[in-house]
Amino acid sequence: MKNLSESDVKKALPSVDLKAALKSALMGLSDGTSKQPNKTIVELQNDKGDCMFFTGVVESLGCFGVKASPYLVEKSAKGENPVTAYTMLVSSETGLPTVMCDATYLTVARTAETTGLAVDLLLNASSAKKVAVIGSGQAALAHLEVQLRDRKWEKVSVFSPSLAASEEKVEAFKRLGHNALEIASSAEDAVSNADLVMLCTSANSPVVNSAALKVGCLVTSISTDAKDAHEIDPKSLQQMDVYCDYRETVALKAGEMSLAKAEIDWSYDSIVADLPELLSQSATVETKKTRFWRSTGLAIEDIAAAFAIAEA
Amino acid sequence: MKNLSESDVKKALPSVDLKAALKSALMGLSDGTSKQPNKTIVELQNDKGDCMFFTGVVESLGCFGVKASPYLVEKSAKGENPVTAYTMLVSSETGLPTVMCDATYLTVARTAETTGLAVDLLLNASSAKKVAVIGSGQAALAHLEVQLRDRKWEKVSVFSPSLAASEEKVEAFKRLGHNALEIASSAEDAVSNADLVMLCTSANSPVVNSAALKVGCLVTSISTDAKDAHEIDPKSLQQMDVYCDYRETVALKAGEMSLAKAEIDWSYDSIVADLPELLSQSATVETKKTRFWRSTGLAIEDIAAAFAIAEA
Repeated sequence: MKNLSESDVKKALPSVDLKAALKSALMGLSDGTSKQPNKTIVELQNDKGDCMFFTGVVESLGCFGVKASPYLVEKSAKGENPVTAYTMLVSSETGLPTVMCDATYLTVARTAETTGLAVDLLLNASSAKKVAVIGSGQAALAHLEVQLRDRKWEKVSVFSPSLAASEEKVEAFKRLGHNALEIASSAEDAVSNADLVMLCTSANSPVVNSAALKVGCLVTSISTDAKDAHEIDPKSLQQMDVYCDYRETVALKAGEMSLAKAEIDWSYDSIVADLPELLSQSATVETKKTRFWRSTGLAIEDIAAAFAIAEA
Repeated sequence: MKNLSESDVKKALPSVDLKAALKSALMGLSDGTSKQPNKTIVELQNDKGDCMFFTGVVESLGCFGVKASPYLVEKSAKGENPVTAYTMLVSSETGLPTVMCDATYLTVARTAETTGLAVDLLLNASSAKKVAVIGSGQAALAHLEVQLRDRKWEKVSVFSPSLAASEEKVEAFKRLGHNALEIASSAEDAVSNADLVMLCTSANSPVVNSAALKVGCLVTSISTDAKDAHEIDPKSLQQMDVYCDYRETVALKAGEMSLAKAEIDWSYDSIVADLPELLSQSATVETKKTRFWRSTGLAIEDIAAAFAIAEA
């Protein structure tokens, strides 16, 4: 069994085509070779935290897998990252464990690459000039890095409430190397006229006024798995074409959708397509309308990512 | 992180009080310090097998845990054990993984000890003279070993269709060292006048005629998790007091119960008590009636077992 630390992961990542690995695992959801049940969650008493278990199988890689991801409130209090994650792969040929991988940073990377895949499928790339990022943590950096790698952008605008005051954070964005990087003074300024808006926060309230979005833009959202977590006004779903990573599991995870269902009678049936449907070209994308794509994070992505790192 | 092989497990087992560890984790289900969600299952295409994921938390041990247990049909075809199992523990204090343990044999051992615990709670021990075992595999041996350790039996009778013809299997039972071991010629002969009947098979049809059971005996059953798997006639539940390991998850796992519900309108509400209820003494046991206790296997047992082995 390969035991991979976070530094192993960071060392291997540059030589791995993570997006291709994710694409292949996601396409397996269309033909039944990948399977993705809902997550399981166990909670500690007295609101001390929880552990989520994400399970799945990717037959094209010959792997079952589970990612265990604890969230521990006490670590927050100590100023540590409260979330860790470990992925265990078990061979579907031998029944033996093959990989144990620290997935704490890898989850950030695979989330950014999955959003990158969604952007490839949903962006009106021919006219896209400006990308906006809301958020300034690891997820925001990783998302922007993927976009700067994948296509040319004339303008890049980033906003978070803590960004402008943090030289360290600004430097991290500058190191990505775009010559027209703007640190915006508000979320609305950042998204103004942007063709792609990537919401990269763990918020549970809207991080941008939907009225400030350019009509016809693509908005991506990661938020978190926490109950009712959301980054846009749930009511704004009514005016957008809504997409997601995986239709079968989105209901348990996407807060803006569950809130929209409760508040404005929005329906999950109105989701235009998920990634497996887009990848198998069973859905067409109308780029004149504003599109909202929600990432919820799938175990099959964790399996594909850990497998790719172990191979590298 | 401790990485424990099957030989590590077998070496450590004799020095571990596994039953006490299981008892403590099970009592946690009464006070909320242990949590036990339902298992998750992912299936391979073309009936090639599946992987079950058992998740839980045992706060008294400071551990989240998941056991991944693949069942691979092709291994059966090669004459290998089709089932493997690996338990990963993650600290609920640090969020770091602490143990990775081969749980293939440990699952057999913890199942036998859990049955042993149920027998402690449900057997009319003062008048118990004869124990019968149906089955002749590892589970049957482990179950009998626990009973011979835990109390004096005047008579021991074992039956399985393949047992009498296998010198090797008979020898394995003889090595347990009881001087009145009988290899019965039928299941009905084995259970005749037995006070404790342990069904230790992976059958999915009755392995003994319920009419042959002594009135007032205790029957324990492990069977498997497979859909509709059962070791007694589902209709016979009507004549017995029914117990189980954990009420909250039994419905998805116990085949004789789901069949009894469908066939004779038997109800899960008629379960007298589960182990957490028996351990917290919130239920009384009526030993004049025949009692049926069903083990379904819980992740918190796997967590407690792996933790105890790692400590040893």
